[in-house]
Amino acid sequence: MTHLISLITLIYCSCGYRISRMPNTKDVPDYYQMGPGTLKIPNTLFKDNRKRMCDRLVAKNISRGAVMFFEGGRQEQQYDTDRDIEFQQESYFMWLFGVMEADFYGAIDVDNCESILFMPRLPDSYAVWMGELKTPEYFKKRYGVDRVNYTDEMVTILSQLRPSALLIMDGVNSDSKSHFEAPSFEGMDQFKIDTTTLYNEIAECRVRKSPGEMEIMRYVNEMSCDAHKEVMKMMRPGRMEYEGEATFKHYAYMKGGMRFVGYTCICASGENAAVLHYGHAGEPNDKRVNSGDMLLFDMGSEYAGYTADITVSFPANGRFTENQKFVYNTCLKANRAVQAAMRPGVSWPDMHRLAERTIVEEFIKEGVLINGTADEMTDAYMGAIFMPHGLGHLIGLDVHDVGGYVNAPPRIDEPGIKYLRTTRDLEEGMVITVEPGVYFGDALIEKAYANPEQAKFMNKEKIEQFRGMGGVRIEDGVAVTADGIELLSHNVPRTVEEIEEFMNRSN
Amino acid sequence: MTHLISLITLIYCSCGYRISRMPNTKDVPDYYQMGPGTLKIPNTLFKDNRKRMCDRLVAKNISRGAVMFFEGGRQEQQYDTDRDIEFQQESYFMWLFGVMEADFYGAIDVDNCESILFMPRLPDSYAVWMGELKTPEYFKKRYGVDRVNYTDEMVTILSQLRPSALLIMDGVNSDSKSHFEAPSFEGMDQFKIDTTTLYNEIAECRVRKSPGEMEIMRYVNEMSCDAHKEVMKMMRPGRMEYEGEATFKHYAYMKGGMRFVGYTCICASGENAAVLHYGHAGEPNDKRVNSGDMLLFDMGSEYAGYTADITVSFPANGRFTENQKFVYNTCLKANRAVQAAMRPGVSWPDMHRLAERTIVEEFIKEGVLINGTADEMTDAYMGAIFMPHGLGHLIGLDVHDVGGYVNAPPRIDEPGIKYLRTTRDLEEGMVITVEPGVYFGDALIEKAYANPEQAKFMNKEKIEQFRGMGGVRIEDGVAVTADGIELLSHNVPRTVEEIEEFMNRSN
Repeated sequence: MTHLISLITLIYCSCGYRISRMPNTKDVPDYYQMGPGTLKIPNTLFKDNRKRMCDRLVAKNISRGAVMFFEGGRQEQQYDTDRDIEFQQESYFMWLFGVMEADFYGAIDVDNCESILFMPRLPDSYAVWMGELKTPEYFKKRYGVDRVNYTDEMVTILSQLRPSALLIMDGVNSDSKSHFEAPSFEGMDQFKIDTTTLYNEIAECRVRKSPGEMEIMRYVNEMSCDAHKEVMKMMRPGRMEYEGEATFKHYAYMKGGMRFVGYTCICASGENAAVLHYGHAGEPNDKRVNSGDMLLFDMGSEYAGYTADITVSFPANGRFTENQKFVYNTCLKANRAVQAAMRPGVSWPDMHRLAERTIVEEFIKEGVLINGTADEMTDAYMGAIFMPHGLGHLIGLDVHDVGGYVNAPPRIDEPGIKYLRTTRDLEEGMVITVEPGVYFGDALIEKAYANPEQAKFMNKEKIEQFRGMGGVRIEDGVAVTADGIELLSHNVPRTVEEIEEFMNRSN
Repeated sequence: MTHLISLITLIYCSCGYRISRMPNTKDVPDYYQMGPGTLKIPNTLFKDNRKRMCDRLVAKNISRGAVMFFEGGRQEQQYDTDRDIEFQQESYFMWLFGVMEADFYGAIDVDNCESILFMPRLPDSYAVWMGELKTPEYFKKRYGVDRVNYTDEMVTILSQLRPSALLIMDGVNSDSKSHFEAPSFEGMDQFKIDTTTLYNEIAECRVRKSPGEMEIMRYVNEMSCDAHKEVMKMMRPGRMEYEGEATFKHYAYMKGGMRFVGYTCICASGENAAVLHYGHAGEPNDKRVNSGDMLLFDMGSEYAGYTADITVSFPANGRFTENQKFVYNTCLKANRAVQAAMRPGVSWPDMHRLAERTIVEEFIKEGVLINGTADEMTDAYMGAIFMPHGLGHLIGLDVHDVGGYVNAPPRIDEPGIKYLRTTRDLEEGMVITVEPGVYFGDALIEKAYANPEQAKFMNKEKIEQFRGMGGVRIEDGVAVTADGIELLSHNVPRTVEEIEEFMNRSN
């Protein structure tokens, strides 16, 4: 996460005139809230997270006397320019401290869970360019930590704690395979450093959401659903795909105070819907929407770092064709079958297989797949031709949230299911997306046609009728409860009838 | 810009089934256009840029037989996650090639200006996840270069050119002081490398906009002005600052196809207006707008990488108070005085001094500054108390565009003017912002009160009347023509009368 240089640049010379206004700490909010009508998040939510982490280490009786040490996200610039990239806090640091500002560090004493934030000592000119120079007292109240010091005091303060070790983050993200760069600072060599304990333990803590976190997940899901409905009201043939993105972002920001989306908006129409991560710089949602197009809009907004991830699929002109209805209902049946089966103890790979199986069975009923049983077709991996991605992923501060392969069975190296971002059994408090998809993508269909083991099951005449329609994805945010699920993304129209009614009512 | 690892990761194993669809190149656009009604930018604009660069080197008779070699921006992820940061091309690479996609390289033969793009060889799975696997033929037509090869062919192709040297980018950005990291790739050691020629020469070329670039600058300015007007229509007491940001972005994207803004939106109300770069993560436009507030909204949208940078200041309730009117008109007078004096050959520091002088003179007239002449006050740097930033900056692909200190007099180390991002004389084809500001910021006023050399000129009673109002900035985008200027941001209301009429008409 850091390089030595970053710490040095934080230690500004503090000469010249200083604004010595003491903030009136009773006016300092002890919560995050963007505006009226948006969610208020008390700083105790993050204190609770810290406690969960300490309790976990104490219960395991490991790292007694140690201090956990974290580096927050740094303010970075676009290439070599002075244009600041809009700052979003690093997720582990956010989970522990709820700090919205860049260039902080934090420490937590394992034994008593006392917390310290280290803030950058900013130059006087900051007040002119960036805003009031906030004091340690301000941040202590705002973030509810036990103390706040400057980063240039960090080594001294940490030494005074006489930690048996500094526990630092070091590990590899199971989604990106990226290495989490361990923090490094001048004077670090005087401490015993433990790089092995923290990364997986904290990932494990992030897997189950606390009641407070669940409130945020409800909020981001409901706001994102409402934003999707705004999009559904305005998208019609003749519109551009990117107008959907613009409308979604606008609604979520205006009504929900949500400045960021959790991932690049996917606003795919027609055959673009078969491109799973459409919408990036090379395919920037720039197609015109045509009358016969199905739309697949996969967007989620975030608040205080927590994000939603919701996909709606609907016909641009407000009326499903028979073919579109069949594909949509197949996908919905898979989605509903999974949600009906979800509860603690259920294996997520089993849910993936259930979704695939549902799709295969519907395809047999319709005569899209022929000449075999569902079992034979499952053995030939027919499902992954039409649903080539994983069923869903943990979600929270990261859209693909951490912990999916911590304390989990190994990745399953078979088509489709190999992309699952977790192989774990479901547990109460997990939030996970349920996002089966049914696509008719050229690449995979052509590849299957060329493979006799798969081609023999394929009714080409039928399949060709669906080519060009792209596909359908129905993605919900779902929390696992003690005995089943809570559907977080409940307020979008989902059935064919609900969608047609919504699209035609709002015209 | 690069690390060895990045090149290696681009050389994917290309095994398995390959989609061999040849694109029908006559359908490939040879221009950039986001949607209907948005600007069409022919790829010849970038070819023209390459030619300007080659002509410059040839005219100087340097680097004959050499090949310029560039690395484009890389797709990066948020921290250690797999969440792609929305890609925006590196500005030098954009200027030369107009490439919207990540992970390209490019080369230009100095002698004949022949151009090669090197594209990543993507795995087959790209077609499923990210979209159609485009071919070299596609990109050759799309970007109008002489040839396109894969990055894994780069060393071979470059060797065949037998260059006398590879000219590569290496230098320090004069705004950020950041080092532009020179590209590096396996096999590079077989070439003679020249790191000294390119950086400043290409920055110099970017300073004067071509007619094609000027079209883009007109477009981004006009669209951004229209977006500001939408904001002015809806901002009223009781709104939140961030609703201004949401509205601006929405309009620019919906109408202009502009997915990005060129810098963090500054939506400051009341005393926040004195914070020059308000709006960042620590001050995220989250104040409620009150009835007596002046608003200072500094926002610009970008298209094909080129950005606008426009500030409007207006009263939230649609009517200026007498004090607000005085401050606004002082700022406008400075803005207009500068624009009236601008033409080729005029020194930009002289324009900065003209703006400061105008403000000081108006303050003397009003009795805000007392006990001295404008000359005496200028010698005491009184202007920089109220306008602590530079008058304006070059703008183009970067909001603070490059070249400001290439072939320029040295930086002037005096209050306020030291922040000028260029000390050059104006030249035809430059685009530069004219953004005088008049602020009553606590930090600088308190500091001046404490300095007897400045305090003696200050009418505290008067100044205290303005405290808390924040400030006013009036920022235009201006192109320098052969005999004067072209005002690019012409379509926003600017005078007190125009603003009051606009705000009250649209209610």
